[in-house]
Amino acid sequence: MEREKVMENLQGLGKEVLAELEAGRSPTIEIPVRTLSNIKFNEVKEQLELGSSVSKRNFMNVAHSRKFMQTLLVAAWINKDLLSKNLHTSLRDMYYALKRTIPGTKENTFEDQHTESDPIVVDLETALDVLREELHLNADVRGRVVGNVVIEDRGDTVDWSKLGSGGWSIPSNVEDIKFKEVDAKYILLIEKNAAFERLHEDKFWKHENCILITSQGQAARGVRRLANRLSIEHNVPLYVFTDCDAYGWYIYSVIKWGSMNLAHVSNKLGTSNARFLGLTMTDIEKYGLEGYTIKAKDMDIKRAKELLKYPWFKHEEWQKEIKIMIKKGYKAELEALSSKGLRFITNTYLPDKIGSKDFLP
Amino acid sequence: MEREKVMENLQGLGKEVLAELEAGRSPTIEIPVRTLSNIKFNEVKEQLELGSSVSKRNFMNVAHSRKFMQTLLVAAWINKDLLSKNLHTSLRDMYYALKRTIPGTKENTFEDQHTESDPIVVDLETALDVLREELHLNADVRGRVVGNVVIEDRGDTVDWSKLGSGGWSIPSNVEDIKFKEVDAKYILLIEKNAAFERLHEDKFWKHENCILITSQGQAARGVRRLANRLSIEHNVPLYVFTDCDAYGWYIYSVIKWGSMNLAHVSNKLGTSNARFLGLTMTDIEKYGLEGYTIKAKDMDIKRAKELLKYPWFKHEEWQKEIKIMIKKGYKAELEALSSKGLRFITNTYLPDKIGSKDFLP
Repeated sequence: MEREKVMENLQGLGKEVLAELEAGRSPTIEIPVRTLSNIKFNEVKEQLELGSSVSKRNFMNVAHSRKFMQTLLVAAWINKDLLSKNLHTSLRDMYYALKRTIPGTKENTFEDQHTESDPIVVDLETALDVLREELHLNADVRGRVVGNVVIEDRGDTVDWSKLGSGGWSIPSNVEDIKFKEVDAKYILLIEKNAAFERLHEDKFWKHENCILITSQGQAARGVRRLANRLSIEHNVPLYVFTDCDAYGWYIYSVIKWGSMNLAHVSNKLGTSNARFLGLTMTDIEKYGLEGYTIKAKDMDIKRAKELLKYPWFKHEEWQKEIKIMIKKGYKAELEALSSKGLRFITNTYLPDKIGSKDFLP
Repeated sequence: MEREKVMENLQGLGKEVLAELEAGRSPTIEIPVRTLSNIKFNEVKEQLELGSSVSKRNFMNVAHSRKFMQTLLVAAWINKDLLSKNLHTSLRDMYYALKRTIPGTKENTFEDQHTESDPIVVDLETALDVLREELHLNADVRGRVVGNVVIEDRGDTVDWSKLGSGGWSIPSNVEDIKFKEVDAKYILLIEKNAAFERLHEDKFWKHENCILITSQGQAARGVRRLANRLSIEHNVPLYVFTDCDAYGWYIYSVIKWGSMNLAHVSNKLGTSNARFLGLTMTDIEKYGLEGYTIKAKDMDIKRAKELLKYPWFKHEEWQKEIKIMIKKGYKAELEALSSKGLRFITNTYLPDKIGSKDFLP
């Protein structure tokens, strides 16, 4: 969404409040409900999303008025101090910038970031149907990318195929990036940095003509949004490659279907046509990695049983994989492939899996 | 050190063992001792370093023979599978690549990575006076950089001033990077990514002609080595900018004086001419940030009292700062500067501090 449009929406919120005040009514703000009861899995879009429940924040209700004040304070500040000046900042900086004692009272605008100012930003994200990044509030950064892609960003032209061993550091906010050239058969999004480094050193992305991304653990918002934009805007398939454990599979789940916490932005952060490349329990048997597995802890099994129940893991293939894990009681890391030789992943495993389209849905 | 030289050193280790075997003696390997008793602070070099104690690992001593086997196994593998093939990998991949049952026995080469194969790498680092990166074993990556610097890396020419909002992702291994052009008055190494993003968006590095690095927390080895190489090889001062707490000050301490864990490589990872720019307790008072401090926890005070006793924090200015913290019982984050406005850090705080050379030693 254009910056001007986001500003209009924020100002619209203020104008509605003003109109109600001028009409002598107590102003209200409507915010979609984000509790579990209002989070649905849309089977057609294959995405988590919010249902239609809405809560009203009423200024004249004593239980609501503090939050009401905070909502308007944050909305006004984002409009005036971030968007109109074209500045970006973090949630923590915003908290410090807005924290103060309200003149003539002993009341502070905010007492705590995580329970007070952060949730207001999610409220605005939901109520205005914009990304936090479109409100110029950056999230944590993690992850890097290489491949045959040329982008334009802040006036610079950056060629992802000419960045040495480092690669391009994925920023938190990728909204304003322009893709000038995207030449790739697929995107390979890898949980572990070590596997990314192996493939990058072997110039896998060059030989295979693909884009390599590492999320370095759970994918940050910037990584999810970048994968989403590349895959959808340029029609490039997205393959996800994680450890063979409930944690790795959940990373895939968030990249594909979205997360319950952020169900209101699944369409922008989730990429529902993503496919799971590996590591699967079936791979462990097929490639003889049994000697390099790790005994699952109670937590791993508990988490696997939870995945089993999620509607988005109801596909027969996933049910089978998860059940094998629970039965066998072990898990495996990407690095287990190195037991077959450091370049096994580059020369055998990935060409095999991608060539035969051996993916999970 | 050149790859060929490192290989010679590794092969030298093997040749000595062979000579002893051929002479009918039990082979031994000498490894400098890394326990606390052998870690010294060199007041002249301003660096942590190892003393002269050495331990002997003797093949015919039952208590040593397993470790002896592991040392030779790792040394041979690094020589043959990494250096001679010019491949790099992670400690975890190495563990998987070397783990197996020794034929004809029930003995595994390794049972655990962290207690068995990782320490062998540090042994070799110490015994051969090389960096783990020179053995082609990569560490975790974290951190990014921007500035007027052009490097050559893996055949690519990368201009750090033309990388959009992302910046160059600092790899774990920066040994082979060639600096083609370095145009900077100083390097500013920042703990927090949010402050880096603020300064990057404000093009602070361009206006000030400096190099901006964020470590995103404790500095990874790649960040420390990059700062060391840039500062020493190109004679550029290094200023470190962290939160005002014992954790932030310890980040500075490791960047400047080295760490106890890695005392054997302080000369390569530490930059003893680094200066601490902020945030100091004195800054909090000077800039009126008292309302934006955080009450120190018991752990914070305990850690501050430890810093007070380290010989490298014996400078009068540091003693004063640490004592103020203990007395006041609070700490502050970089983001507290945003309470004065988002651009206070760019327009006031940093120009003030750098202009008046208001640094701690």
